[in-house]
Amino acid sequence: MKYLDDLETRPPEVRERALMRALQDQVRNAKRNAPYFTRLLADVEPHDVATRAGLARLPVTRKSDLQALQKAEPPFGGMAAVAVARLARVFASPGPIYDPQGDKKDYWGFARALFAAGFREGELVHNTFSYHFTPAGFMMDLAAQALGCPVFPAGVGQTELQVQTIAELKPVCYAGTPSFLRLILEKADEMGSDVSSIKRASVGGEAFLPAVRDMLAQRGIAGYQSYGTADLGLIAYETQAREGLVVDEGVIVEIVRPGSGDPVKDGEVGEVVVTALSSEYPLIRFATGDLSAVLPGASPCGRTNMRIKGWMGRADQTAKVRGMFVHPSQVNEVARRHGEILRARLVIAHDADQNDVMTLQCELDGTPPEGFAERVADTLREVSKLRGNVEFKLPGTLPNDGKVIEDQRKFG
Amino acid sequence: MKYLDDLETRPPEVRERALMRALQDQVRNAKRNAPYFTRLLADVEPHDVATRAGLARLPVTRKSDLQALQKAEPPFGGMAAVAVARLARVFASPGPIYDPQGDKKDYWGFARALFAAGFREGELVHNTFSYHFTPAGFMMDLAAQALGCPVFPAGVGQTELQVQTIAELKPVCYAGTPSFLRLILEKADEMGSDVSSIKRASVGGEAFLPAVRDMLAQRGIAGYQSYGTADLGLIAYETQAREGLVVDEGVIVEIVRPGSGDPVKDGEVGEVVVTALSSEYPLIRFATGDLSAVLPGASPCGRTNMRIKGWMGRADQTAKVRGMFVHPSQVNEVARRHGEILRARLVIAHDADQNDVMTLQCELDGTPPEGFAERVADTLREVSKLRGNVEFKLPGTLPNDGKVIEDQRKFG
Repeated sequence: MKYLDDLETRPPEVRERALMRALQDQVRNAKRNAPYFTRLLADVEPHDVATRAGLARLPVTRKSDLQALQKAEPPFGGMAAVAVARLARVFASPGPIYDPQGDKKDYWGFARALFAAGFREGELVHNTFSYHFTPAGFMMDLAAQALGCPVFPAGVGQTELQVQTIAELKPVCYAGTPSFLRLILEKADEMGSDVSSIKRASVGGEAFLPAVRDMLAQRGIAGYQSYGTADLGLIAYETQAREGLVVDEGVIVEIVRPGSGDPVKDGEVGEVVVTALSSEYPLIRFATGDLSAVLPGASPCGRTNMRIKGWMGRADQTAKVRGMFVHPSQVNEVARRHGEILRARLVIAHDADQNDVMTLQCELDGTPPEGFAERVADTLREVSKLRGNVEFKLPGTLPNDGKVIEDQRKFG
Repeated sequence: MKYLDDLETRPPEVRERALMRALQDQVRNAKRNAPYFTRLLADVEPHDVATRAGLARLPVTRKSDLQALQKAEPPFGGMAAVAVARLARVFASPGPIYDPQGDKKDYWGFARALFAAGFREGELVHNTFSYHFTPAGFMMDLAAQALGCPVFPAGVGQTELQVQTIAELKPVCYAGTPSFLRLILEKADEMGSDVSSIKRASVGGEAFLPAVRDMLAQRGIAGYQSYGTADLGLIAYETQAREGLVVDEGVIVEIVRPGSGDPVKDGEVGEVVVTALSSEYPLIRFATGDLSAVLPGASPCGRTNMRIKGWMGRADQTAKVRGMFVHPSQVNEVARRHGEILRARLVIAHDADQNDVMTLQCELDGTPPEGFAERVADTLREVSKLRGNVEFKLPGTLPNDGKVIEDQRKFG
């Protein structure tokens, strides 16, 4: 048994048809049951989203706006499709941002990630994600239950007690952050305790650095990362192919230019925007604030879904220039108003006197028309209320790092 | 709907016949599937326990022996009737004592207690028992799920954040220790936050003092206590009659003379001995170490099962402090880690506000080294998970009465 189910290996065009059908159902569900989406998608009909191009025309909802939306319309900003009374659990992520858990098995879908990490029925899982306030602990716990794995709910902290428990209960699997697993292994060395029962690890919640992965491998632990959020659940997961992360079967992932809703070309770095298909929390085009990129081609592990690179940083590049906020959406707005601009990047630097200087770098296809730099500078000033220089670049010469605003200033 | 089910109001003789049949089944199950009971009950046939008198002839198994039994035969001392691989979860109570959770709805049976406390379908439950290591959090959580109540898994600590979450999510129900609820209410006053959404509380893990119950009532919160353990689940629960605790339908309770297996006369104080009938952990005549007494007569609430008085203290020196067990072995462990300590005695008392206060009295040979009290206090906290004071005594000045834990608290 190499895969959790047949969904993972279906032909891409079969998946795409299924996703587009599910998307239309979810838009219908969201419009009917989630007041926020009733308003946001008032002019959208389910058949408008029969294709990815149709999806790309829908407005995005930003994670950074969630707190304000929830405050205005508690507890879920009108985005949940079921009443609190019908939920299984409610969580509070730092902010606070409240997250619903619907009443179904493996609600967040992490069983797929645990299975890809090698977790199998009957294997004891030592779960060090917290069960309190945030959903991370339950995400892994319910996924393990779905696979038939018993769980030890360890939670965070108490490293000595964690070591003692692992030495006595001899779990085969670990779920938690990679750095806490390293801490446990080091503490076990210090205590002279045998924690070698652990053979597999599903890690997340932070970057999984190659040095930590190698350190685990040296101890006979195969560590695989998963990528998800408290709102969306599983987004993508690592497989034995170790080539990027394969997208989960229950979501549609787009990579967009930060601050916009416009998909970038495959391979270009941008913001991860996710549409949840199977959840009672029907987030449609939810901008995570995380950067990643599509990894072209198919995974050698046999899974046929789209792949993304790992987490590549945060997309929120809002900067303060001469006391004023500049948002990526403003940079995109300047580019939008001038069709000649293929891509734009605002570089913020200090001059010799530590004054803020803005330069809008624009990729152009061909020679700029007469007076074009001045017109772009005027637009930049109109949109941002700030003066800036304009520079033109050849197509494909701006860095592929997902940055719409690059802050080169050194503070302190 | 006044009762969770018809079991609660069946005629006592109908219940007794059902319990005695279930007892024989459980003895059969335990002998067949749990190696410890195969040995312990080698000479017992199921038909030997067709009556309470027959049950009273079986050997008791003491909670205080569990740690050693588990060490000898990990992880459950041969007492679980299913393999670890078939369990849903494994827990570690302080000691450590490992506790299994079988894979069924409301495994520990607390839905009956929550229902009697007024919890109803669709009401949000703010659950402040910990989900980590010990099963208390899951006991209440799974019970709430069984009733159709969504849960906010709050866990312990973070009082300000608890207040903020209650003010925003407006739960109707609280589950946790009574002292922590009092702390939350006082913190809310201090912060000027409205936590008046809470109308019902199911409390446990420590004595429910009349002063706290009255304080809750003054704020419009009806608080009811439940009594259970990590191994057995629910044993008995308070009802609106407020006359002692009604025994759960899934256990057989006996009150025995402490240190023996002999039932005392009704009304006499003795040790609570419980036989679990419905669990994958078929504890037969399990001596809890808790003191209580049968309360004669039937409850005015209409439930027909036997009643016991509340928790009346510990039959052995193991004490419960702020909801956590403290064992003599842990006090000895603290002394063992610091060679300078000749003898140690843990004194548990109430402060002026009825809060539990622990003081570790240590006989020292000579002057304590610099910072020694802090180091001992750190060790105490690490071993017991509880904060305590440290006092130094001259050799030979602690009472010579064999006590490692002295409980000076007055209950009721």
